[in-house]
Amino acid sequence: MENPVLVEATRGNEVESRHRGAVSVVDAEGASVLAIGDVECRVFPRSAVKALQALPLVEGGFAKKYRLTDAEIALACASHSGEPEHVATAASMLKKPGQPPACLECGSHWPLNEEAARALAVSGQTPTALHNNCSGKHAGFICLACGLGADPKGYVKPEHTVQHAVRTALEDLTGASHTPDARGTDGCSIPTYGVPLPALAFGFARFGSGVGISKSCARAAGRIRSAVAKHSFMVAGTGRFDTAIMERFRERVFVKTGAEGVHCAALPELGYGIAVKCDDGTKRGAETVMASMIARFLKLNEADSGFLAGFFQKPIQNWNGITVGEVRPTEALADGNA
Amino acid sequence: MENPVLVEATRGNEVESRHRGAVSVVDAEGASVLAIGDVECRVFPRSAVKALQALPLVEGGFAKKYRLTDAEIALACASHSGEPEHVATAASMLKKPGQPPACLECGSHWPLNEEAARALAVSGQTPTALHNNCSGKHAGFICLACGLGADPKGYVKPEHTVQHAVRTALEDLTGASHTPDARGTDGCSIPTYGVPLPALAFGFARFGSGVGISKSCARAAGRIRSAVAKHSFMVAGTGRFDTAIMERFRERVFVKTGAEGVHCAALPELGYGIAVKCDDGTKRGAETVMASMIARFLKLNEADSGFLAGFFQKPIQNWNGITVGEVRPTEALADGNA
Repeated sequence: MENPVLVEATRGNEVESRHRGAVSVVDAEGASVLAIGDVECRVFPRSAVKALQALPLVEGGFAKKYRLTDAEIALACASHSGEPEHVATAASMLKKPGQPPACLECGSHWPLNEEAARALAVSGQTPTALHNNCSGKHAGFICLACGLGADPKGYVKPEHTVQHAVRTALEDLTGASHTPDARGTDGCSIPTYGVPLPALAFGFARFGSGVGISKSCARAAGRIRSAVAKHSFMVAGTGRFDTAIMERFRERVFVKTGAEGVHCAALPELGYGIAVKCDDGTKRGAETVMASMIARFLKLNEADSGFLAGFFQKPIQNWNGITVGEVRPTEALADGNA
Repeated sequence: MENPVLVEATRGNEVESRHRGAVSVVDAEGASVLAIGDVECRVFPRSAVKALQALPLVEGGFAKKYRLTDAEIALACASHSGEPEHVATAASMLKKPGQPPACLECGSHWPLNEEAARALAVSGQTPTALHNNCSGKHAGFICLACGLGADPKGYVKPEHTVQHAVRTALEDLTGASHTPDARGTDGCSIPTYGVPLPALAFGFARFGSGVGISKSCARAAGRIRSAVAKHSFMVAGTGRFDTAIMERFRERVFVKTGAEGVHCAALPELGYGIAVKCDDGTKRGAETVMASMIARFLKLNEADSGFLAGFFQKPIQNWNGITVGEVRPTEALADGNA
């Protein structure tokens, strides 16, 4: 089934490249507000659901037990750029249950932020697991394991207590089954489950509004959203979409990217959740769609409107800084039926 | 018009992402050997046509005049990774007509090769135009300008003598008009012209075989192909597709990537030219298609077959080196009518 072209990249007078995808917007009652493309097929949400994966940590009282700061809670939801503050925060999280960085099972990679990667090299270091964009999430898992009195070793495995708790939280929020046949392995080695976009959107609607979930879960969600709104730098980093959007809109928007062209958001004041999948897996496609969606639904003054437009009507500049084209949404993105 | 899905990226049991595109294979007489998808619309070939853009330099006798080495001729066709040898070779090219690096008008960027970028930072340097992946092509343009007795200043502009000559070469090889209405500006600031895939494929068929072009042009093409076959490292770099393919197949395959999911090739022994455009502009899509196409047409022994299969049946590994999925061609890539 063909998803419509949602985003175009132009050069001169021509459309040079095109991105197809699907979008689902659902309210906290589960009613579809908008559906574009094939919203029935399963999508691995990847990192987009990190905040939901952090619910057991907070709801279980372990953020309180280990006196996690708001910055640390925000990092538990992060796909961070590996800048010094991110790395330091991940390290500080692990100290609280007294676990060494070696306990992290996410693997290592150079910081996503290129300047930070170069600075690390200049300092004579090579990256550790702390630099991995998922290190905050994993530090949160370590805290969860220790809080539950479980041996953290093997916490990435589907059968570990931590992943049981995480899967339960995802099922509770989305209402979708997370069974072994729908399971893949994520970049950081934890399980990821294929789930239809409307279920993801529903999960975010509930995460954002607290409607339809237990009081303790709603409180935990609120704590997470507040922490992220105060520390949006932690969730991504310098020059990153999620950080920029949330630094501007604070608790009005919770937005989170996932690998392979996934992007999810909650708009708490509307009780809406948004889930986007760009077919080809590109960030360029997904971010343009997400920015358009936020602009479509959130009530914006002129300044905020202009700010957001910069994310979905984006000049393409060449190596000399000359504007040679633009990335823009298509008409198809203005459509979409409930 | 919908192009078919040509490439899938899987995770676990699911297809996670999909790449659509079009492919044209044409012989040196201009007959279509294969056409998949919409091969009528115009495509900016971007860097894929660098070797054709280098024809005036060689055919005009300026490679000889400036005693350019094979490595330098190869670099004139390159989208190089900015590794030390690339940078040094671009610098040495400019010395020959006695022009300073400041004459390059491509702009600067950090080396495409991340390790080289970090090493550059560690050495305390910041990138210059020499590190730009197009610096060899531009050094070649400087040599062309000087050889033609023209002031190199402004050599990137459409109206400059250099770009006139380059456009003429592209028109001669492809048989397609390169007019202002079809023009965009490339990443490195020179003009790029939208051309249908079969015309690009035709250009490469002629570039590879020498059929249907003047004797002097055929000789120049042969010189370029020979230089590239000997110095395939120059055309791209460490771990890069084009370098790996040509290091293996030498003069049997001339292959060149272009930005936004373009890939072109010549198979001289068959007199074929291949042109690929991945709709969404991704390298992942285009390289998988190109590797499949080479495997489909080139007569291969078992070892070469296995080698090439590694480029179109590619495991996806996570940060811990665990295989979590694969990138693979679809059935649609096995189809295609003349």
